Amino acid sequence: MKQYTLRELAEHVQGTVIGDDACVISGVAGIEDAEPGQLTFLANPKYRAKLQETRASAVIAAPDVEVPGMTILQAQNPYLAFARVVTLFSEKKHPPVGVHATCVIGEQTAIGEQCAIGPHVTIGNQVTIGERTILYPGVVLGDGVTVGADCILYPNVAILQDVRIGNRVIINGGAVIGSEGFGFAPDGESTYKIPQIGTVVIADDVEIGANVTIDRAALGQTLIQHGVKIDNLVQIAHNVVIGENSIIVAQVGISGSTKIGKHVILAGQVGLVGHIELGDHVVVGAQSGVTKSVPEKTMLSGSPAVNHRLWRKSQVSLLKLPDALKTIKALEKRVQELEVKSGS
Amino acid sequence: MKQYTLRELAEHVQGTVIGDDACVISGVAGIEDAEPGQLTFLANPKYRAKLQETRASAVIAAPDVEVPGMTILQAQNPYLAFARVVTLFSEKKHPPVGVHATCVIGEQTAIGEQCAIGPHVTIGNQVTIGERTILYPGVVLGDGVTVGADCILYPNVAILQDVRIGNRVIINGGAVIGSEGFGFAPDGESTYKIPQIGTVVIADDVEIGANVTIDRAALGQTLIQHGVKIDNLVQIAHNVVIGENSIIVAQVGISGSTKIGKHVILAGQVGLVGHIELGDHVVVGAQSGVTKSVPEKTMLSGSPAVNHRLWRKSQVSLLKLPDALKTIKALEKRVQELEVKSGS
Amino acid sequence: MKQYTLRELAEHVQGTVIGDDACVISGVAGIEDAEPGQLTFLANPKYRAKLQETRASAVIAAPDVEVPGMTILQAQNPYLAFARVVTLFSEKKHPPVGVHATCVIGEQTAIGEQCAIGPHVTIGNQVTIGERTILYPGVVLGDGVTVGADCILYPNVAILQDVRIGNRVIINGGAVIGSEGFGFAPDGESTYKIPQIGTVVIADDVEIGANVTIDRAALGQTLIQHGVKIDNLVQIAHNVVIGENSIIVAQVGISGSTKIGKHVILAGQVGLVGHIELGDHVVVGAQSGVTKSVPEKTMLSGSPAVNHRLWRKSQVSLLKLPDALKTIKALEKRVQELEVKSGS
Repeated sequence: MKQYTLRELAEHVQGTVIGDDACVISGVAGIEDAEPGQLTFLANPKYRAKLQETRASAVIAAPDVEVPGMTILQAQNPYLAFARVVTLFSEKKHPPVGVHATCVIGEQTAIGEQCAIGPHVTIGNQVTIGERTILYPGVVLGDGVTVGADCILYPNVAILQDVRIGNRVIINGGAVIGSEGFGFAPDGESTYKIPQIGTVVIADDVEIGANVTIDRAALGQTLIQHGVKIDNLVQIAHNVVIGENSIIVAQVGISGSTKIGKHVILAGQVGLVGHIELGDHVVVGAQSGVTKSVPEKTMLSGSPAVNHRLWRKSQVSLLKLPDALKTIKALEKRVQELEVKSGS
Repeated sequence: MKQYTLRELAEHVQGTVIGDDACVISGVAGIEDAEPGQLTFLANPKYRAKLQETRASAVIAAPDVEVPGMTILQAQNPYLAFARVVTLFSEKKHPPVGVHATCVIGEQTAIGEQCAIGPHVTIGNQVTIGERTILYPGVVLGDGVTVGADCILYPNVAILQDVRIGNRVIINGGAVIGSEGFGFAPDGESTYKIPQIGTVVIADDVEIGANVTIDRAALGQTLIQHGVKIDNLVQIAHNVVIGENSIIVAQVGISGSTKIGKHVILAGQVGLVGHIELGDHVVVGAQSGVTKSVPEKTMLSGSPAVNHRLWRKSQVSLLKLPDALKTIKALEKRVQELEVKSGS
Repeated sequence: MKQYTLRELAEHVQGTVIGDDACVISGVAGIEDAEPGQLTFLANPKYRAKLQETRASAVIAAPDVEVPGMTILQAQNPYLAFARVVTLFSEKKHPPVGVHATCVIGEQTAIGEQCAIGPHVTIGNQVTIGERTILYPGVVLGDGVTVGADCILYPNVAILQDVRIGNRVIINGGAVIGSEGFGFAPDGESTYKIPQIGTVVIADDVEIGANVTIDRAALGQTLIQHGVKIDNLVQIAHNVVIGENSIIVAQVGISGSTKIGKHVILAGQVGLVGHIELGDHVVVGAQSGVTKSVPEKTMLSGSPAVNHRLWRKSQVSLLKLPDALKTIKALEKRVQELEVKSGS
């Protein structure tokens, strides 16, 4: 079991200890579950009252937080500081370094040093894998695939032909990268499949959720840029581009050729039609359906999505509508009576 | 082919035969597809008229159903009785008992008696599997995983490190249990990954659909309690708790740390924001988006979700709104004319 | 690298060259990415202005398109013509013909000639596979499965017991066909699992997206008819029927026993309740929720879905509602004043 003094942890996160900095921390836990010997955190001042009940030996909190009798590790960004401490205590066991005997590896492959290739992995021809990359059991890399250094591909991830993946990319179980784009040309009663001869490019520091699907481009490439985080069960169609550091929450669907800027946030279950552009820092509320291009910093909600404030006002109004309809009916009657009276 | 007399089936389901209880039944089928020699059922009185056309030799129905010339197996709960009969006729072929030669099994594992471990399965170190559990081809169990007795894990299911699964749990193909929770702390322009060091606990008698994703907790555990049924392509985020016997229909998404009571029903494509609580027996209509905690027995619809009746009235009103806007315009004009007349 | 003269390509697609038909084409690309030596296309006249900027050596376009100094391959259906040319240049590398040594193959199987069965594939007992079918690594075929000729099953696709798949079917990675239908009979506090003893039948020329889930029928069969195209992450419940040539876009969910006609289009993230029927040529807008049966050629939108035009009008009206409520309030006051004045 790993152990650190609170002083060591404070140095690690560049924080300040209020209280006993010699106390020994052997783990981290949530504010309600923490036990003596553990460190917890208060990221949201809303939960400040819970500090009274926690059994943790110390709490990471913002610089203005002091609680009599409680040891506090004050940090400028308590959430980030906590995350850094959690990293110290994390004991993830990945497959051991080496290539498991059951792997099938094609010709002209280049596998970097210190890679861990688990059981039942299939690696095609002309594949390149960077140093220290980890492939969990059942991963499939098609011909011509490139995976960078320090990547983790969890069980049964499938990377299809010619897809290129950068460094420090994490792909959760069951994700499929480079599946066929959904393109058919009408041909009388039936349809003709448009071969999808493009590929997918995933830049550095991207994280991709479990059972995500990212289609290869019809022509050219589907592109996920640096630092993008994609949650589980997201669908990304052919030729989509997602800009740096954007956050795509679970079950979002992005239709073909749509371009998303940097630092965009798409909340859960959002849908985007094809061939539109979202500017940088756009935020789209959960379950919204975006049907038009929008400039940077727009905040959208609704299906079809409109300006978030407008949407909110209309939703509040909608609940008053049944009564308003009655009022209208009554007004009609009253106006009619007035009209009769006035001889109109 | 299995065969039973109707008398035997009636005893099995504690029902009463009206008609020939010696008739031999060799299969079950839907009311329209059933052939002579087969048994069908009428669970919904709405379809009573179809009884005239069925070719089935007998029908399971409620105690009040009698049809001249037709053999009826009356049961208190006809749907349940039918399900029990279907079980008798089911001929599911699972992989044979034993461990297939292509499996890779780690150290310090304990595999119960009568287990069936199919081809290309990977089992990590310190894994425990209960008796009679069936692992289909391509299943991956990470280090430290526990799976109870009498479970069925279908092809390519991935259970990640330290996840604990109870008894009689069924997990359909491609489901990923224990994927990385989606947690990132802002760190200037970029983000810092919060290690997800918690786990997932699945209690007894849970069923999980195909390609479902259940993330491991950041700290502590994501918890699916006894008897919960989860349909295909559902997303369950880190630290979610789902109470006993709740039903989660396909493509639902539940955000982080949300707590769901017992006997809750979430219909298809529902979304829940994080950090809220739904009381016992809450029912949420399809495609709704729940943004706030709600007490037990609430019925919700809409996005954002509100009381179901209120939502329904507002939806009906909404369709009348275009006309109402015209009426308002006309009223304004009429009132103005009255005002002019009255010298206001 | 493949090369064709423009004349050869024109013959292949039955088009007419305006300009230099001897020019050599060695690839295809989008209108913005194309380089000299490549062919591009203009399917949508909206993008006609982009023709000025393209560096492509020639452009496929409609018969009325002529651009001075530019070589045009005129075709009746330019999109289809382009697709046919792309097919010529496509260099998809599938697994080589033959059965990989790591495959596990059951008893009484019949595998057609020229099949390519990749590494770590599992094929159950009594399985039949037609000629030239390709199984990528990690595919699992359960007992009694039939797959036709010229099919492609991408990595980790799971086809469960007794499912029948036609000819020329493409199934993308991670799809699960024949998972357990979601059926439970209430049994006091708990539920009783209804065994799902039916199967799934996929007709010829169907394409199925990555991580799609199609449940087996409770009784009888879930049926996907000829030419249906299903995008990624779609959920199809037990006993659903989808008619010929229908298009099901990503993340759609179709509940149990619902029947869909021919040439239906369900846009992305649509949900359908169970036990309804959609006629031929029905079109449902993205994110809509269909709750009732509808006749052929209906166009629907909204959740709950209504006639598309009605929905559109009500959505436009909704944004005017906040102002309308103020107008109503003002009208009430004005009417009251008039009433006072008139002595009502």
